[in-house]
Amino acid sequence: MRIGMIGLGRMGGNIARRLQRSGHQPVVFDRNPEAVAELELEGFEPADSLEEIKKKLGTEAVFWVMLPAGEPTEKTIQILRTIAEPGDVVIDGGNSFYKDDIRRAKLLADKGIHYIDVGTSGGVWGLERGYCMMIGGPKEAVDHLDPIFDALAPGIGTIPRTPNRMEHEGEDARAEKGYIHAGPAGAGHFVKTVHNGIEYGLMQAYAEGFDILKSKQSSKLPEDERYVLNLTDIAEVWRRGSVISSWLLDLTAAALAKDQMLSQFSGRVADSGEGRWTVEAAMEEAVPAVVLTAALFARYRSRVEHTFADQVLSAMRFGFGGHVEIPQ
Amino acid sequence: MRIGMIGLGRMGGNIARRLQRSGHQPVVFDRNPEAVAELELEGFEPADSLEEIKKKLGTEAVFWVMLPAGEPTEKTIQILRTIAEPGDVVIDGGNSFYKDDIRRAKLLADKGIHYIDVGTSGGVWGLERGYCMMIGGPKEAVDHLDPIFDALAPGIGTIPRTPNRMEHEGEDARAEKGYIHAGPAGAGHFVKTVHNGIEYGLMQAYAEGFDILKSKQSSKLPEDERYVLNLTDIAEVWRRGSVISSWLLDLTAAALAKDQMLSQFSGRVADSGEGRWTVEAAMEEAVPAVVLTAALFARYRSRVEHTFADQVLSAMRFGFGGHVEIPQ
Amino acid sequence: MRIGMIGLGRMGGNIARRLQRSGHQPVVFDRNPEAVAELELEGFEPADSLEEIKKKLGTEAVFWVMLPAGEPTEKTIQILRTIAEPGDVVIDGGNSFYKDDIRRAKLLADKGIHYIDVGTSGGVWGLERGYCMMIGGPKEAVDHLDPIFDALAPGIGTIPRTPNRMEHEGEDARAEKGYIHAGPAGAGHFVKTVHNGIEYGLMQAYAEGFDILKSKQSSKLPEDERYVLNLTDIAEVWRRGSVISSWLLDLTAAALAKDQMLSQFSGRVADSGEGRWTVEAAMEEAVPAVVLTAALFARYRSRVEHTFADQVLSAMRFGFGGHVEIPQ
Amino acid sequence: MRIGMIGLGRMGGNIARRLQRSGHQPVVFDRNPEAVAELELEGFEPADSLEEIKKKLGTEAVFWVMLPAGEPTEKTIQILRTIAEPGDVVIDGGNSFYKDDIRRAKLLADKGIHYIDVGTSGGVWGLERGYCMMIGGPKEAVDHLDPIFDALAPGIGTIPRTPNRMEHEGEDARAEKGYIHAGPAGAGHFVKTVHNGIEYGLMQAYAEGFDILKSKQSSKLPEDERYVLNLTDIAEVWRRGSVISSWLLDLTAAALAKDQMLSQFSGRVADSGEGRWTVEAAMEEAVPAVVLTAALFARYRSRVEHTFADQVLSAMRFGFGGHVEIPQ
Repeated sequence: MRIGMIGLGRMGGNIARRLQRSGHQPVVFDRNPEAVAELELEGFEPADSLEEIKKKLGTEAVFWVMLPAGEPTEKTIQILRTIAEPGDVVIDGGNSFYKDDIRRAKLLADKGIHYIDVGTSGGVWGLERGYCMMIGGPKEAVDHLDPIFDALAPGIGTIPRTPNRMEHEGEDARAEKGYIHAGPAGAGHFVKTVHNGIEYGLMQAYAEGFDILKSKQSSKLPEDERYVLNLTDIAEVWRRGSVISSWLLDLTAAALAKDQMLSQFSGRVADSGEGRWTVEAAMEEAVPAVVLTAALFARYRSRVEHTFADQVLSAMRFGFGGHVEIPQ
Repeated sequence: MRIGMIGLGRMGGNIARRLQRSGHQPVVFDRNPEAVAELELEGFEPADSLEEIKKKLGTEAVFWVMLPAGEPTEKTIQILRTIAEPGDVVIDGGNSFYKDDIRRAKLLADKGIHYIDVGTSGGVWGLERGYCMMIGGPKEAVDHLDPIFDALAPGIGTIPRTPNRMEHEGEDARAEKGYIHAGPAGAGHFVKTVHNGIEYGLMQAYAEGFDILKSKQSSKLPEDERYVLNLTDIAEVWRRGSVISSWLLDLTAAALAKDQMLSQFSGRVADSGEGRWTVEAAMEEAVPAVVLTAALFARYRSRVEHTFADQVLSAMRFGFGGHVEIPQ
Repeated sequence: MRIGMIGLGRMGGNIARRLQRSGHQPVVFDRNPEAVAELELEGFEPADSLEEIKKKLGTEAVFWVMLPAGEPTEKTIQILRTIAEPGDVVIDGGNSFYKDDIRRAKLLADKGIHYIDVGTSGGVWGLERGYCMMIGGPKEAVDHLDPIFDALAPGIGTIPRTPNRMEHEGEDARAEKGYIHAGPAGAGHFVKTVHNGIEYGLMQAYAEGFDILKSKQSSKLPEDERYVLNLTDIAEVWRRGSVISSWLLDLTAAALAKDQMLSQFSGRVADSGEGRWTVEAAMEEAVPAVVLTAALFARYRSRVEHTFADQVLSAMRFGFGGHVEIPQ
Repeated sequence: MRIGMIGLGRMGGNIARRLQRSGHQPVVFDRNPEAVAELELEGFEPADSLEEIKKKLGTEAVFWVMLPAGEPTEKTIQILRTIAEPGDVVIDGGNSFYKDDIRRAKLLADKGIHYIDVGTSGGVWGLERGYCMMIGGPKEAVDHLDPIFDALAPGIGTIPRTPNRMEHEGEDARAEKGYIHAGPAGAGHFVKTVHNGIEYGLMQAYAEGFDILKSKQSSKLPEDERYVLNLTDIAEVWRRGSVISSWLLDLTAAALAKDQMLSQFSGRVADSGEGRWTVEAAMEEAVPAVVLTAALFARYRSRVEHTFADQVLSAMRFGFGGHVEIPQ
C-alpha cells in the first residue's frame, strides 16, 4: 500500500524503512529537509509538503503522523483535515492523549475522513524486532489497513504461543502477530498509555532492587551484613530461569555489563505524558494504582535537587526540636 | 521526690528544670562537666558519676536516663544495673527501641530493679508547655513515681475536655493531664514510636501541600492557571477555623512568617529510629501503612542527590529508546 | 449587607444563620421548599426562585451559591448569568474545581458580573466556630464584600498569634481573622483544594497510626511484644503537649471516647473531588506528592472488597508457583 | 555427586529429580513417609532419618535442606549440626532470612561444617526449565559443589547472550548458565530476597495496569471514554515486541486466555518473608524503595475486608462533616 509518512525522527524513519522492506511504498515528509533527503538517498519517494503527499497518494490517501504528541501532532492533523478528502485515513502513530483522539476522530468523521490512533511500542529496536501496535478506530478502516500493520508487526516469530489461547471466541488472531484492534477512537492510545504506565512501574521495581543490592555494601551496616555484590552477574543470572526475567532486565544486564557503576547516567529521569495519563485514568476509575503512581513520582523527584516540601520538613523540625539539618 | 537526671542535653536539662520548679530535687549528671556546671549555677545538686548519684539518692533511688538511643543509653543502663539495688527504679526517657526495653526490663527485674520506659514528646517547648508522656512498666513502680510524671506533664490546662470521656470504665484519668501508663515494659516507647511515625506522616502531608501551592506559579502551567500564592497567609488562615489546624501548622506558619522562601533550610531531612520502627511494626502486623512509609522514604530521598535507582532507570531508557537524559 | 443564599443544606443554612447573627439579611432559597420554610420560621426572608432573589436584592445583588460541585452549581451559575446585571456578584462557596472558576469568571465578566470563588472550611462546626475562607476573584469585589466575609470568619479569637507575622509587607491582615484573598479567579478554590488534599494525608497518617497500635495485640506477634493498648487514652494524651496535637486528633479522641472499637463505622470512605484535583495539580507541576496520593488511593481501596489487580496477582502466583490463595 | 535431599515438597522433589536426570544420586528424606515412598518408586534411594542420610553418604556428606523457612529449616539445621562431621556441607536451599544464614554459618563453621545458602527461583517450572540459583558461602565449598549447581541450572540454552559481557574481568562465567556465587554466608539468600522483592513490584505493576484497563468500562466515565477492552488480547500483544514483555506477562496472558475474568481467584494475596525483608534492608540502607513497599502493602490490604484505619477515617469524617459513609 501507499502511505504518507509524516515525521522522520527516531520512530518515523524506521517505520518507513520497515514498510519499504515489505514492499510498501511510503512517501516521506518531515519539516526538516535533511531528514527527507536522508530517506530519499535510501530510495524513498520524498514530498516537500503535506499537500504534496496528498497529490502523490491520490484518493484513499493514508497519512501516518509520527510526531511528538501535543502541538506538533495537533497542528498537523488540523492541516490534514483541510487537505484530506472523504475516504482518506489519518493515522496518529505517536503518543497522543486518548481524549484528543476521541475529539479528533469526531472532527474528521464530520468530513468523512477516518481517524486511527496507533499506540506503537518498540523504540529503537522496532526496525529489526517489529513494532507492537495497539490500534483504535473504526473497524473497516483498521481492517483495510491490515497489510500496513502486518508489515510493521513482529509477526508470530519464535515466541512460544500462549497455552489455551484461541480456544474461545472473541479473541483477536492479530494479537499473536503483535497488533490488535483495541476498540473505537482512542482505545489504541489508551492501551498504549497503560502499557507505558506499567513500564514505569516495572522499571522502578528493578531500579529499587538494584539500588538495595548496591547499597548493601554501606558502611552503615554491621560488618558481617555487608556484601559487595556484582550487579552485572546478578542481572545476568536473573535472565536465566528466574521469575523476573524480562526484556527490561535484558537491557539492564547489557547496561551493567558495559559499566557496573552506570556512571554515564546522571539519574535525572524524564517522563512523557503516559505515566501521568495512566494515573489520571486510575483516578477517574477509582483504581488504587499505588505502584504506578509511586514510579511516576520517583521520576519527578529525580529531577530536582531538593523539593520545597523537604524544606518545609526541615523548618518544622527546627520549630519543634531545634533540629538543624546538617548537610551530608 | 529525689531523682537522678542522667544526660543534660536539650531534653534532659529542661526536664530537670521543670521538676525543680515543682519542688522536686534532681541530682544532675552528664559526662560533659560543663553541662553539669551550668545546672549547678541554677541551684541543682550536681554529681560527677553514676555512683555518686546513687550515693546521694540512697535507697529507692530513681534514675532518669535521658540520652541518645542506642549505645549511650544501653551502656548507661548496663552500668546502672551494677550500681542499683533492689527497689531502685531506672527510667529510660529517651527514644529507645521498645524491644530493647523488653529485654532490659527482664534483665533488671532479675536483680529486683524496676525498669520504666517513658516516651517523651514536647521538644524544646516542653519546659514551658509540659511534656506529653507515654509510660511503660510495672504498675506499682509507675504509680509510685506519679509525682514526677505529674510535675512534668502539661496538666489539664486550657485545652477543652473531650466530650464523652470518662463515662466508661477503664480509662486513665492521667491522660487528661498529659501522661498515661500505656502498658508493660516497652509499651511507653512503642506508643511514642507510633506517635513519631504519625508525626512524619503529618509533616509530609503539610509539606507536600505547601509544595503544590508554591509550584502553582510554575511557567510550565497555562498562564491563567498560574497563581503566586502567599504561603505565609495561607498557613495563617488555615490555623483559624479550618479542619487542618494543628500545632505543626502553627510551627509552619511561624517559619513562613519569618521567611516565606524558607531559604535557610537545605532540605536534607534527618530521621531518627521511630519512623523505621513504626514501619517495621506495621510489617510485623501486616498493616498497610502506606502514608507513614511514604513519609519516611521521602526523608531518605531528601538526603541524596541521585539514587542508583534513578541511574538504572536512565540506563534502561537509553537501552530501549536511545533516550539521553538531559541535565535540567 | 443583603445577600441571596442559594442552597440551604448542611453548609448553606448555617452560613445564612451566621450572617443573620451579625446583622446581615440573607434572602434564602433552595429548590426544596421545606428547607426554605425551615429558615423562614427562623425569621429569614424567603425566595421561591432565583429571579425572586434578584428582585428582592435589586441592584448590586450578591448571590452566594452553596450547592454540590458539578452540575447543580454549574446550572445555577448559568441561570444567574442570565438573571444578574452588571455590577452584581456571584459567589461560588462550594467545592468547585478551580478551572471551572476560571472559565466561569471570564463568562460572567463578559456581562459585567463579578465572580468570586470561596473555599469554605468548617463543616458542621462553622456556625459556632466560624468559617475559614480562601477567596479568589477581583480585588474590588472581594474588598466590597468584606463585611460578609468578616461576619462568617472565626475572627482573631483566642488562638495565639503567630510570632514574626506582620513584620513584613505584603501580608494579608485578614488571615488572622480567618479569611484571605488568595488571588484571581480560581485561587480560592485552588487553595481550598490543596487544604483538603492535606486533610486526606493528615487523616490517613493518624488512621494508620491507630491501626498499628490496635493491631499490636495480634496473636501473630511474640507474646512479650503484644500490647493491648487503650486507644482512647492514647488519643487523649496526644492532645496534650505532644507534637501531633490537632483538631483532627481532637475529633478522633472524641470518637474513640464514645466507642473505642468504632464499630458503627463500616470503613468505606468516600472522597470528594479535592483529593484527586490535588494529585492532578501535583502532576501538572511535577511535584512528587507521595503521601497525599497514597491517602487518596487508600480511600479508593476502602470501597471495594477486592480489586481486579489482587486477582491478577493471585493468577500469577498460581502460574509460577502453583500457589492457591487460601481464604482467610 | 551424592547428596541428601531433605524435604520433598513442590521444590525439593523436583530438585532431586533434576539431579537424578543428570546422573547424580540423591538420597531422599521427608518426615512424611509417603513423599519418600513416591520418590522411591521413581528409583531414588530413600532414607528414614537424617542420621540415615549421613550413614549412607559417608564422609564429605552434602545435605540439601529444602524446607519452609523458619522453624522447620532451623530445627533441621540444628540437628544436622550434631550429625554432620568436619568437611560435610549443609545447604539451605529454601527461603531463609539471610541474617539467619550468617548466624548459622558461624555456628557450623565452629564444628568444621560448611554452610551454603542457595536462593532458588523457578517454582513449579524448574524441573523442566532449570533453577536460577544465587549462592552464598565459602568459595571452596561452592566450587566443590559445582557439578550439583550446574545440573540444576538452566544452562546457557537459547537465551541470547548479553552484549558486552565477559569483556571485563571479575565476572562470573556461571551467571550465563543460571547460577552465581554471590558472596559469603547469606549473600545467596539476600540476592534471592531482593529478587522476590522486585517480583512483588513487577507483579503489582502489571496487576494495576490490567485493573485500569478493565475498569475503563466503568459507568462512572463519560460514555465516549468507556472501552470494553479484551484483556486476553492485550496481554498477548504485549508479549510481542513491546517494552514490557516478560515471563510474568506470559503467565498473565495464559491465565487470561483461560478466563478473562480470573473468577477462580479470590484476590487474597499471600506474601512470604522476602517482600518484608527487602523493605527492611531498604530501611537499613536508607534506600527509598517506594514501589517495592507499595507492592507489599497492597498484599496486606488484599487480605482484610476493612482496616481499622478505614474506620478511623470514617469516624473523623463524621466528626467534622457529619458524613455518614454509605455502604456501597
